[in-house]
Amino acid sequence: MTTIFSKIIAREIPADIIYEDDIVLVFLDIKPINLGHTLVIPKEPSIDGTETNPDTLAHMIKIAQKIALAQKSTLGCTGVNYIMNNGSDAGQEVFHTHLHVIPRFPNDGSFKHAVHCEFNPNEVPIVKDKLIESLNK
Amino acid sequence: MTTIFSKIIAREIPADIIYEDDIVLVFLDIKPINLGHTLVIPKEPSIDGTETNPDTLAHMIKIAQKIALAQKSTLGCTGVNYIMNNGSDAGQEVFHTHLHVIPRFPNDGSFKHAVHCEFNPNEVPIVKDKLIESLNK
Repeated sequence: MTTIFSKIIAREIPADIIYEDDIVLVFLDIKPINLGHTLVIPKEPSIDGTETNPDTLAHMIKIAQKIALAQKSTLGCTGVNYIMNNGSDAGQEVFHTHLHVIPRFPNDGSFKHAVHCEFNPNEVPIVKDKLIESLNK
Repeated sequence: MTTIFSKIIAREIPADIIYEDDIVLVFLDIKPINLGHTLVIPKEPSIDGTETNPDTLAHMIKIAQKIALAQKSTLGCTGVNYIMNNGSDAGQEVFHTHLHVIPRFPNDGSFKHAVHCEFNPNEVPIVKDKLIESLNK
């Protein structure tokens, strides 16, 4: 599938690229949560991080850590989020796997508190058993 | 540092553990965003994902992907977030590295839209150059 990110990889459209290797391309988000907000994307296309090659995913988060350390040392941020939204219902907007690396500052107000579901405690062991069963398949 | 998570690793307090290997422990979040919300934590303590051993971090996201696939196949979720908050200003609450794997459903309203910063476009190339310089050190 052609996305804005595959066009950036193909150098058909410009981006503020800060790092590149055989596996990933890393560039500044065009609409940053905070300045320095960076995206790590795999060159090999995959729609989201549930289907990305596991070794590629592993490399992506190692690179994210390097970016986070660079953000902390140069931008003075006091926190960093690593966020990968997989699927439109998870907030994904571009359907080429990407890992957000977002510099954070005291009281920057970038994110609101998440809303926690109400749940029946009796459902927890059922969900637990389902997941264990699925993982052991 | 002793945290609630190191106590879970030491089996001093209970948790709904769904997976374990030499490197990670995986259990249900006690205060889930959605039911099935899972945490992947390293057994070797680190405060956050800017200082976690890179190979450990890599293993954590590979396991997160397995959890996400189990969530999709058993819980019927249509999306999954992988989220690691590093530092209190990034929303981290327990200071033992942890990767959230959050099942998401259509219109679940779990997360509000992030607030994007206003920025001077002239600052972008400065930030870009700073990050590149830091990454090449």
